[in-house]
Amino acid sequence: MAYRAVDRGVVSELEGILGKSAVFADPENLEKYSSDETTEVSFRPGVVVKPGKTADVVAVMRYAWENRIPVTPRSGGTGVVGGALPSCGGILLSLERMNRIREVDEENLMCVVEPGVITGDLARRVAESRLFYPPDPASIDSSCIGGNVAVSAGGPSAVKYGTTKDYVTGLEVVFPDGSMAKMGGKVVKNATGYDLIGLMVGSEGTLGIITEVTLRLLPLPPHSVDLLIPFGDLTGAATAVSEIIKERIVPATIEFIEAEALRVVREFLKKEIPFVDAGAQLLVRLDGETKNHIETDLERLWEVVRRMGIEDIVVAESSTTQDRLWEARRVIRDAVQWKSPVKNGEDVVVPRSRIPDFVVRAKGALDEVGLASIFFGHAGDGNIHVEILKGALTDEEWETRLAEARRRVYGIARELGGLLSGEHGIGYIRKEYLDTFIDDAGLRVMKRIKEAIDPRGILNPEKIFI
Amino acid sequence: MAYRAVDRGVVSELEGILGKSAVFADPENLEKYSSDETTEVSFRPGVVVKPGKTADVVAVMRYAWENRIPVTPRSGGTGVVGGALPSCGGILLSLERMNRIREVDEENLMCVVEPGVITGDLARRVAESRLFYPPDPASIDSSCIGGNVAVSAGGPSAVKYGTTKDYVTGLEVVFPDGSMAKMGGKVVKNATGYDLIGLMVGSEGTLGIITEVTLRLLPLPPHSVDLLIPFGDLTGAATAVSEIIKERIVPATIEFIEAEALRVVREFLKKEIPFVDAGAQLLVRLDGETKNHIETDLERLWEVVRRMGIEDIVVAESSTTQDRLWEARRVIRDAVQWKSPVKNGEDVVVPRSRIPDFVVRAKGALDEVGLASIFFGHAGDGNIHVEILKGALTDEEWETRLAEARRRVYGIARELGGLLSGEHGIGYIRKEYLDTFIDDAGLRVMKRIKEAIDPRGILNPEKIFI
Repeated sequence: MAYRAVDRGVVSELEGILGKSAVFADPENLEKYSSDETTEVSFRPGVVVKPGKTADVVAVMRYAWENRIPVTPRSGGTGVVGGALPSCGGILLSLERMNRIREVDEENLMCVVEPGVITGDLARRVAESRLFYPPDPASIDSSCIGGNVAVSAGGPSAVKYGTTKDYVTGLEVVFPDGSMAKMGGKVVKNATGYDLIGLMVGSEGTLGIITEVTLRLLPLPPHSVDLLIPFGDLTGAATAVSEIIKERIVPATIEFIEAEALRVVREFLKKEIPFVDAGAQLLVRLDGETKNHIETDLERLWEVVRRMGIEDIVVAESSTTQDRLWEARRVIRDAVQWKSPVKNGEDVVVPRSRIPDFVVRAKGALDEVGLASIFFGHAGDGNIHVEILKGALTDEEWETRLAEARRRVYGIARELGGLLSGEHGIGYIRKEYLDTFIDDAGLRVMKRIKEAIDPRGILNPEKIFI
Repeated sequence: MAYRAVDRGVVSELEGILGKSAVFADPENLEKYSSDETTEVSFRPGVVVKPGKTADVVAVMRYAWENRIPVTPRSGGTGVVGGALPSCGGILLSLERMNRIREVDEENLMCVVEPGVITGDLARRVAESRLFYPPDPASIDSSCIGGNVAVSAGGPSAVKYGTTKDYVTGLEVVFPDGSMAKMGGKVVKNATGYDLIGLMVGSEGTLGIITEVTLRLLPLPPHSVDLLIPFGDLTGAATAVSEIIKERIVPATIEFIEAEALRVVREFLKKEIPFVDAGAQLLVRLDGETKNHIETDLERLWEVVRRMGIEDIVVAESSTTQDRLWEARRVIRDAVQWKSPVKNGEDVVVPRSRIPDFVVRAKGALDEVGLASIFFGHAGDGNIHVEILKGALTDEEWETRLAEARRRVYGIARELGGLLSGEHGIGYIRKEYLDTFIDDAGLRVMKRIKEAIDPRGILNPEKIFI
């Protein structure tokens, strides 16, 4: 695809369209928007634009379409797969200025927000109205709704509450040619033509730029209790998850942390953490409308754990003690990064019951390849974060071993009925592995959809597909 | 689009592919598959095929693709918008023989089913394992999962539990060219390429034929209680719905029935029904894990209703009395059909808070046009069924007035932020109105997707789009 390069002429034409205060071509800005939270990869945009409203996005896309200039949309810049990196240069379109919560509609239990709203800000705002926006990615206080929609972000609460896609009922989208469409609205049912919302959510900014999102909300569960449960090994923890589910208890979250992660976290935090010598921990949250309801579930869950011979657990009902229980889980990525500044993070997803198989086999494969690894994640929904550490390896050793490791880990996930990504997306750094998980026919249809909507290939090129 | 007509040669070629026992060209079968539950419209297929497995569907599609013969997929044949009618003749592909529940997976809370499984059979089967498949279209005992997926069918429980799209985690699809893809699986999180599942659900059999569905399940709520609440008028009932939601109570269902519907039902059933003189009724179901939980909600709900001056309600906790309460709601369509064999059914959806506005204005518009109408439906999710009755009008009067009535009713829904269909789809009979609700840019993208996946236009042609 031959693109027009961004030169001084393009910059001044964009300034003419958006005004000078929304166009940035200085080295500092170009540097800042060259990277996100993806380690080891960065690309410099030709120019950065910061539209303030939908009409600005339309104007930029029309210009880019006419001139065949690549456009990479970005909101919070917290992605870990390079999905918001301008790998072909061109225009980096940051949605950070479109950050208003337009409406919290208490009658319809809906809210209308711009893509640059930080997810945690939205969750706190609706909580003031006793409402609940459940998706809770680890990056909740820095990632934005726009990016969350782009990858259908999940989080610990997905086991009970699903992911972003389960909350989007309306979108405003600007397509690559600069045309704009409103889809859906404040309605929970919609059988009016193809579900373009379903298609747009998770399309990683390759089919259109999201300029407004309507989200459904739930009543805020007023009560919750957290449990930290130690196990001898990960298989024990995974068995407990199966037993809990078989009891028909669906906790709000069921997170697992393996022994190696606990040790790294202790080293990083330089303080004692509960049950640090456990082979694995489960961190379970129960929530509900009444204390009584939670107590019933808690009693049944206790019974499951006791049957497995575990007597000592920590129960936290106040937010202070809850925060303390979650501390280890929350800092894992930081601790890993501190331990090994160069690392690789995977987020494969397997059927929940296959977690022990996956962890045992994947850890074995990584050991064989000679790579240190840390496993943690969402035991309730089968989404496992595998952090692979470079440590003291040479660059060459690291690259060779990592390629082999990913091939093997993905092969195991695939065999167990799993998929490449649960919540981070494919982006730039996983695209050569997509065909391990998607049939030829499915991949062909995906690419045809991309071509049909973006025949000039200008919107977020080089993402998802090789 | 020039299609090859189905002649004796095509029939015998299909017999060669599928075997004689799966191909039907006799007048009786051609007649049977000419209509579904859409009144006033029928089309005769050239031939009917009944594949028994995915490979058969692949073989039929390859043949149809090579020979440019239209294929119309059908499962339960209970659609009310003509979506499964072979309007271009060709091959009617009935999925009725692919009706196995392949697996109920209690560890992952998932099931795997073929498209011809009747939804009610599935719900009962999983309930034996204390599991819950929530979508409950009125046609639950005759419609099939395949068709439910094709229109993202809803039902009364959508207010709390969402629609079919919220439960599909995996699909096997045969595309128009006969290629086949498996998508997703037993995973609740998936950010692995475009969400083709999201696109396929609700595409009304125009993009691919669904040959297997993986559905997530919930724990079965063991307790429920139903309440029948009479109001002076529909505005009062709608106000109560808003007040209930503002209290942060989310019932499993909130159905409404207006006065005229109650009278027709009494005439039809030839017996007394509770609160028959009410201006409107709400039928509310609360469900939950414990009796205690329901009682808390019930007490709060009672308080809301009492504040509105209503003292007399019926509460049903046993399944026998619950069935009696639901009887009137369930027979409305039959009663309307008995009253006026020719009728038109709409299922627009508006934001929940706009229901009173919609009903008052739409009823006024229908009165002005001179058409009798009956309103009922899902007050909890804004999905309103409007039955328009021909009664004693001449065909000409009926056609002229109905066209005008639809134009007006849709215009009102559109103004209130509503959409053309909540759960029935667009099919054959609503397609000329789709552009009232979908922007040009959105419609263009939908059509491009259709062309990209079905460039020969052979799969369920003449549906959704004009």
